[in-house]
Amino acid sequence: MKWCRIEVDGAPAFGIVEGTDVALLDAPPYEPHRRTGKKVALKSVKLLPPVMPYNFYAAGINFRDHIAWASERLGTPLKVPAQADIGYRSPNALVGSGAEIVIPKDSPGPVHFEGELVAVVGKKARNLTEANALSCIAGYTLGNDLSERSFQKSDRTLWRAKNTDTFKPMGPVVVDGIDPLKQQITVRVNGKEASSYNTSGAIFSLPHYIARMSAYVTLWPGDVIWLGCDGATLPALEPGDLVEVVNDAIGVLANRVVRA
Amino acid sequence: MKWCRIEVDGAPAFGIVEGTDVALLDAPPYEPHRRTGKKVALKSVKLLPPVMPYNFYAAGINFRDHIAWASERLGTPLKVPAQADIGYRSPNALVGSGAEIVIPKDSPGPVHFEGELVAVVGKKARNLTEANALSCIAGYTLGNDLSERSFQKSDRTLWRAKNTDTFKPMGPVVVDGIDPLKQQITVRVNGKEASSYNTSGAIFSLPHYIARMSAYVTLWPGDVIWLGCDGATLPALEPGDLVEVVNDAIGVLANRVVRA
Repeated sequence: MKWCRIEVDGAPAFGIVEGTDVALLDAPPYEPHRRTGKKVALKSVKLLPPVMPYNFYAAGINFRDHIAWASERLGTPLKVPAQADIGYRSPNALVGSGAEIVIPKDSPGPVHFEGELVAVVGKKARNLTEANALSCIAGYTLGNDLSERSFQKSDRTLWRAKNTDTFKPMGPVVVDGIDPLKQQITVRVNGKEASSYNTSGAIFSLPHYIARMSAYVTLWPGDVIWLGCDGATLPALEPGDLVEVVNDAIGVLANRVVRA
Repeated sequence: MKWCRIEVDGAPAFGIVEGTDVALLDAPPYEPHRRTGKKVALKSVKLLPPVMPYNFYAAGINFRDHIAWASERLGTPLKVPAQADIGYRSPNALVGSGAEIVIPKDSPGPVHFEGELVAVVGKKARNLTEANALSCIAGYTLGNDLSERSFQKSDRTLWRAKNTDTFKPMGPVVVDGIDPLKQQITVRVNGKEASSYNTSGAIFSLPHYIARMSAYVTLWPGDVIWLGCDGATLPALEPGDLVEVVNDAIGVLANRVVRA
């Protein structure tokens, strides 16, 4: 199944993607729901972030080449995490595919993409094992973990480096039935491939993260887990650039960069 | 006005506190709402966290004596933040007054209270100034920023140190018309005063935080900003302890500690 969240008459609505149409639902597809009978053309809709999570998890550093590259760039010692400690982002920053990424007026830059696979929680879960961890996942989407590297260096927290409004594009749709450990994630800038890696290279797997997390925290329907990215995140984005995160099964998360 | 969020027939409901009663509303008091005509006795209700925020902000370190105490305890250099960088907590950890605080089975401890004033956002806001910053605030409540200090030391992020389920009691009610810069916040453990400080000692004021935050992020109705605590956070909490965060205008946020 492939589903999305779209704007219909100014309000958010969930829908199932069927060919070139979206069949609207009266509730999220991971909760009890019915079809409303209404259909809209996928081409004409405004895509919203597929969910609005209360708990917005991000693995952060979970790929060796990305850690090595960041260490070199920052001149800090290479330090691979010894355990799967999950981090956070904030929902204010979420936008859907097609929305603009707005670089703040006073951003010294650079602003970098980070193309990521995102797991969407569909069931309340606690104390899962690695073996049954994926039973709580409704499906997968894509995320672009935009990062303002000057703010990331100067600030005590990641608040404006990572959570400036519009800095977390997510979408375009959610798909189920794919293996999160074997996805190729590619980033294109202005149509040109800038980065491509496979999620098989993750230091800690999604089942490992979920098992560890759910020993302490309840996972709730609608929560999202962003899984980190591999490699360098170049070129730096400039106003006017079109940045796309691409996966064969999920599609293309496309956003244009502007300056406030 | 004094309002709360309570459980009614298994579902959450907002209500206005009137003497010993709660007059139920059909929506949050900071949104268009009507009274349902139903009243329940305040004494008999289960209090929930007054709001469920999408964006859960926490000032973290914002008082000199707390920073000095933490530096001494951790053997790290005393470092006062140079700018107001907001941090985050996660909604999974929220519980209301009266709920149990559950220390994880494998927690080496110590587990510490941190009694804090909490600002509740009532209006969508962006680009506020210090002069009009408080115009977006619906009122104030109390928070207990429970912290597992071993996890805080060992983990790369604050996820289970601060966001283990039940580690963020918030309540009991929200009040408006108080000055957030002049509140006495007291913590009692088993009825005995353990900590007491005035919010006037904050390094960065709430208006300063809001002005700085809203230059980058949109504040949304229901968002909360936890304002940090001052001084030491002793004694460490043990199973069986009753921990209370107290303020004259807001009341008592009371939670019993248990071990999982």
